[in-house]
Amino acid sequence: MNIVEVFIVLGTISFAISGALSAMAKKMDVFGVFIIAFVTALGGGTIRDILIGKTPVFWMKDLQYFYLIIIGVFIALLFRSKIGRWRKTLFIFDTIGLGIFTIAGVEIGMIADLNPIVCIILGTITGSFGGVLRDVLSNQTPLIFHKEIYATICVLGGSIYYVLIHFQGDQNTAYVVTSLLVIVSRVLVTKFKWTLPKGY
Amino acid sequence: MNIVEVFIVLGTISFAISGALSAMAKKMDVFGVFIIAFVTALGGGTIRDILIGKTPVFWMKDLQYFYLIIIGVFIALLFRSKIGRWRKTLFIFDTIGLGIFTIAGVEIGMIADLNPIVCIILGTITGSFGGVLRDVLSNQTPLIFHKEIYATICVLGGSIYYVLIHFQGDQNTAYVVTSLLVIVSRVLVTKFKWTLPKGY
Amino acid sequence: MNIVEVFIVLGTISFAISGALSAMAKKMDVFGVFIIAFVTALGGGTIRDILIGKTPVFWMKDLQYFYLIIIGVFIALLFRSKIGRWRKTLFIFDTIGLGIFTIAGVEIGMIADLNPIVCIILGTITGSFGGVLRDVLSNQTPLIFHKEIYATICVLGGSIYYVLIHFQGDQNTAYVVTSLLVIVSRVLVTKFKWTLPKGY
Repeated sequence: MNIVEVFIVLGTISFAISGALSAMAKKMDVFGVFIIAFVTALGGGTIRDILIGKTPVFWMKDLQYFYLIIIGVFIALLFRSKIGRWRKTLFIFDTIGLGIFTIAGVEIGMIADLNPIVCIILGTITGSFGGVLRDVLSNQTPLIFHKEIYATICVLGGSIYYVLIHFQGDQNTAYVVTSLLVIVSRVLVTKFKWTLPKGY
Repeated sequence: MNIVEVFIVLGTISFAISGALSAMAKKMDVFGVFIIAFVTALGGGTIRDILIGKTPVFWMKDLQYFYLIIIGVFIALLFRSKIGRWRKTLFIFDTIGLGIFTIAGVEIGMIADLNPIVCIILGTITGSFGGVLRDVLSNQTPLIFHKEIYATICVLGGSIYYVLIHFQGDQNTAYVVTSLLVIVSRVLVTKFKWTLPKGY
Repeated sequence: MNIVEVFIVLGTISFAISGALSAMAKKMDVFGVFIIAFVTALGGGTIRDILIGKTPVFWMKDLQYFYLIIIGVFIALLFRSKIGRWRKTLFIFDTIGLGIFTIAGVEIGMIADLNPIVCIILGTITGSFGGVLRDVLSNQTPLIFHKEIYATICVLGGSIYYVLIHFQGDQNTAYVVTSLLVIVSRVLVTKFKWTLPKGY
């Protein structure tokens, strides 16, 4: 298991925990909690695969993802009273997931030989649309549209990754550099409460 | 027309009626009622086909489904004042649909040579995601996430069907046994108001 | 650039403006405004392509659409205080978009050799489901289900186009005739506030 795989595992579990916590806050039953965790963690990549016609979608070919969701839901259910204290740890994992998923989306677009802008859109969808589906299924206006600068970070991270791969080519370096940039910028954004302008 | 086809017809019409009734309760116009009926009855199978890349999706190749939706909407519109009295009949049809759609999803997963767990997930999506789409389009938190043990029955039914086919092989027996189990367990669940634990 | 291409450009920009205005009314940030504009303008065609398996979906192969969305969002952001006065111009563009997108959907169904009814359903999805996605992402019950006769016009326009192509064959004539009919009927519907019966 290389560093990229470790990041994907941590990111998937973190996203599943964040979905499960959101479903628990909405008083859903165990099944609903599992579904929301599943959709939050795997929804972005599923939409990406459907849009480019890469079917059956990724989690159908590799049960690893299914088990990671189960683990995430268990963690959320068992330790929910302590999760408040873990907020920072979770936030870091979630940010790792965001960075890695965005990169994975950009990469898949590059392999499919799509235009750079489309690759970055794919990366953004992979990183942030799981959260959009979570919010739609919980009957809320998606958070990323009005409260978080989340998706903007996806766009920046995806662009940097694309440029690094295109001009320099070493995947490992590109992964590490992009991930670090995503994590650092998200921490800064959160710490200083930066938001996107309403523009109007 | 064999017994399986009869079940699919009854299940599709029942799902369409349930969608139409839900849209009428939301004061939608005739077009909205038709769309919600369509989505409730065919949405689960449509998502299944998209996820595994079986396109054009099933209802595009066989107009039977379109006509069944029309019939369901007409029944709902014409007899709506009497539908209260039919509640039990509708409930039985709806349960038959649930069982059959779940089985159809598992079967299609098996044909596509997917892992058993993925087959059962596909069956559950086929059986229950039409209702999820209905609720999202009606701007409600999906019922199955907090009030019904509906999806749990899909999971159990799908698992039983998979095991029966895998170890014994006769499709007709598997269909009948699974359908009966789904119907009986849903009736019991409803009668005794069993719910899934919140788990927290 | 022929007349059809001009219509598609105007329709896409109009739909993007309508999405951006809706997102601005919901106080979304710039990113949210862009996403909602994108989804409103391209969502219908994206669902159409996914349903028939025409992937990667259309906007991935031609960046024109991406730029048109950017233009639409800029127009909405820069001139938003004056957009009230443009209401009629926007309405005409939006109706052109509706007509053209519906026709494009029907056409793609015919090329894929699908049944006439399915072609018309595809046209309706292409013309009206961008608005459905816009409303779902903005956490509203989709407008077309209860307030607009919008989708009905899609169905009629799509049917007329299908018949014209089938029996007469000249695409340019069919485009012009159908578009004019869609525009005239929508103007009449709006002027006289016709609505579909609730049917119950």
